[in-house]
Amino acid sequence: MRTVDLIQRKRDGGELDAGEISHLVEGYTRGEIPDYQMSAFLMAVFFAGMTDREVSTMTDCMIRSGETVDLSGVKGIKVDKHSTGGVGDKTSMIVAPLAAAAGVVVPMMSGRALGHTGGTLDKLESIPGFRTDLTVEQATAQLHELGLVFIGQSERVAPADGKLYALRDVTATVESIALIASSIMSKKLAEGVDALVLDVKVGSGAFIKKQVDARRLAQMMVGIGRRVDKRVQALITDMNQPLGYAVGNALEVMEVSQTLMNQGPSDLTRLSLELTARMIFLAKLAPTLEDARHVAENKLVDGSGYRKFKQVIQAQGGNPKALDEFVLLPNATGMREITSPRAGYISAITAEDIGRASTLMGAGRNRKEDRIDPAVGVILEVKVGEKVDAGSVLCRLYYTNEEHVEEASELVEGAFRVSSQKAEDRELILEVVG
Amino acid sequence: MRTVDLIQRKRDGGELDAGEISHLVEGYTRGEIPDYQMSAFLMAVFFAGMTDREVSTMTDCMIRSGETVDLSGVKGIKVDKHSTGGVGDKTSMIVAPLAAAAGVVVPMMSGRALGHTGGTLDKLESIPGFRTDLTVEQATAQLHELGLVFIGQSERVAPADGKLYALRDVTATVESIALIASSIMSKKLAEGVDALVLDVKVGSGAFIKKQVDARRLAQMMVGIGRRVDKRVQALITDMNQPLGYAVGNALEVMEVSQTLMNQGPSDLTRLSLELTARMIFLAKLAPTLEDARHVAENKLVDGSGYRKFKQVIQAQGGNPKALDEFVLLPNATGMREITSPRAGYISAITAEDIGRASTLMGAGRNRKEDRIDPAVGVILEVKVGEKVDAGSVLCRLYYTNEEHVEEASELVEGAFRVSSQKAEDRELILEVVG
Repeated sequence: MRTVDLIQRKRDGGELDAGEISHLVEGYTRGEIPDYQMSAFLMAVFFAGMTDREVSTMTDCMIRSGETVDLSGVKGIKVDKHSTGGVGDKTSMIVAPLAAAAGVVVPMMSGRALGHTGGTLDKLESIPGFRTDLTVEQATAQLHELGLVFIGQSERVAPADGKLYALRDVTATVESIALIASSIMSKKLAEGVDALVLDVKVGSGAFIKKQVDARRLAQMMVGIGRRVDKRVQALITDMNQPLGYAVGNALEVMEVSQTLMNQGPSDLTRLSLELTARMIFLAKLAPTLEDARHVAENKLVDGSGYRKFKQVIQAQGGNPKALDEFVLLPNATGMREITSPRAGYISAITAEDIGRASTLMGAGRNRKEDRIDPAVGVILEVKVGEKVDAGSVLCRLYYTNEEHVEEASELVEGAFRVSSQKAEDRELILEVVG
Repeated sequence: MRTVDLIQRKRDGGELDAGEISHLVEGYTRGEIPDYQMSAFLMAVFFAGMTDREVSTMTDCMIRSGETVDLSGVKGIKVDKHSTGGVGDKTSMIVAPLAAAAGVVVPMMSGRALGHTGGTLDKLESIPGFRTDLTVEQATAQLHELGLVFIGQSERVAPADGKLYALRDVTATVESIALIASSIMSKKLAEGVDALVLDVKVGSGAFIKKQVDARRLAQMMVGIGRRVDKRVQALITDMNQPLGYAVGNALEVMEVSQTLMNQGPSDLTRLSLELTARMIFLAKLAPTLEDARHVAENKLVDGSGYRKFKQVIQAQGGNPKALDEFVLLPNATGMREITSPRAGYISAITAEDIGRASTLMGAGRNRKEDRIDPAVGVILEVKVGEKVDAGSVLCRLYYTNEEHVEEASELVEGAFRVSSQKAEDRELILEVVG
């Protein structure tokens, strides 16, 4: 089997069989296939796509490249939730405690901020003392006791995916639907869950810009799960404006606290409840989705989600009081208001620009090795559809260092569009797949 | 300028400017851009193509990566001829002497056999003593004296192309029209010619299988020449069956000798005369193409092309008597006849299979480092359209080693198609571009 022939077949639209996909993924992971052939193959996949069978095989090869987590010793149905990444997307910290409070076992494996999007691990670590680098034994014990643990992905899980992702990052092959699907699903299936709820973000603030691509990605991931008998559902949700009002690590933890006290933004609350309901339903803890929605809402209203989050913070070394007393969280030292140049209705808030501004001030990373500043970020004062006067505050920038504030302000100013007429309301949850 | 951004822009169908193309080609040649980024870029070019402006810039960058030959000291208009490669294509050895006999100055720079196609240098070197590794001084002196020299490409000419080609070869990116065009034209323009006649082969025995691709390649190459004020014309010619009857190095030299004595196959003679006429016309040695055709024919009929070839063989160290006494050429030790299983008309002779069979017996190379056997090859006894009886000889295989004869015979048997009805005649010269 010559690697160049496999690249050519994929390039010309052909399908590779399981042995051929294995040859590529395993050969690459072992260092036998050089980077330059793999990157040509990845670019061919970007253009020619992959069949569902190819994507499943690819996912399986990446899982087999490393260790898998065995959660069979933990009672209950294990359900995780994964978002493809957005701006102000802090749902994991709301959904996981709510679902756990309802009896779902939630091994929440999360990532870090990259580019203009945030990462749950970084957000959690803005809580003083919070640790995500638990051993498998510690994580399993906590899962057993509290039904929820927040952990980072071990490098020993799906190492082929890690190696491939690093190559995709420098060869402009990140945005392939097939490669995104196999990358996400290899990590999620390796962690031993029974079911999975996916939040596929689409819009200016997401990696996926078009709904048709989001749908294909969602269908592909649901299909990968189905072929290994895992229940997977995907919501396709709007990411044209940030989710909620807060963007930035500690700022988002504050909004999570408010939301778990049922005082959060309506869009964030609504999406979190729907994701929670899907997890409860897939965990078979409610006979119908409608029942699951009621359970989720109860866990919010009665404060049991909020209490669960505090228990988990305590268990993972953090100070749970930080949820009540925000002075215990890292706080910015400077603030700048951005005001509206005229009266009208907010017709757009480009999420990507808000995310970039936040990253510029230190809330995110442009490269993996960058350090983040947990205190900084942006708080929106308005959302799309709201009426503003000339001079009304649109948002506030929180910073600790003046260096990039000017540039960030310009980005943020450009992100808001004010129109004379009120635009039609946009759906937050666009589609359900699976 | 980040390389990954340039790859992404090309991937998404954008156009790169001159500085960006230079960044890529020069950065790669200097070893600053790694193979894995260049191969992803090349695959993106395979799918997204290049604009005419991009191809010209790419060509220019490759020329500037190495030395160029200065032929301004040699009087006369310098015209070269280049074929994209086929099976049995020995026209260079016929066209160059005929054109030189008519007064064209011909610095004939040629390549070597690779895959199922032959190379002029290998064919010439089957003439005992013939040397193609001349210095620039020797080549210029011979060009001055005889108006013709056969040389190989120096590695100092367009080294960027050499490095890129090696990468394309192992990443399934050889077959990109834009990359083929810039590769060919960078080498040809670096050798200091004033005009160029291109023979773009299309069909089963060529790299280009579809006429629409051949046309685009021809147009691109003519355009590259035009933008640097070089007169370039391209013929698009059929390569579904081998050209002439002989395939294999010494066997083809024999057919060249017969053709220069005006006793060669009609297809080979016709194409050679047309290519020669175009060279004469571009060299402004005839007022019209029709006149140029008469000149070419005269040089064939009066034997001056034949005498010119003998002079050049002598000058380059070879034994010119080999053209009259074929026993002086390397001769095969074994022969096998392939006969027709039934009566009918020959409707196809798949050139690629004939070329592969010849390569299998040792006439070509699968890898650059393979040694070739000058004596072996295939002689067709029939061409498409001819009538055969059951048991008629279709072709003869000439070999020196029995090892691959069985496999070669099977390939050759499968190459002939015999039908009960005579197929329509196929055009040899399909189009003229430029």
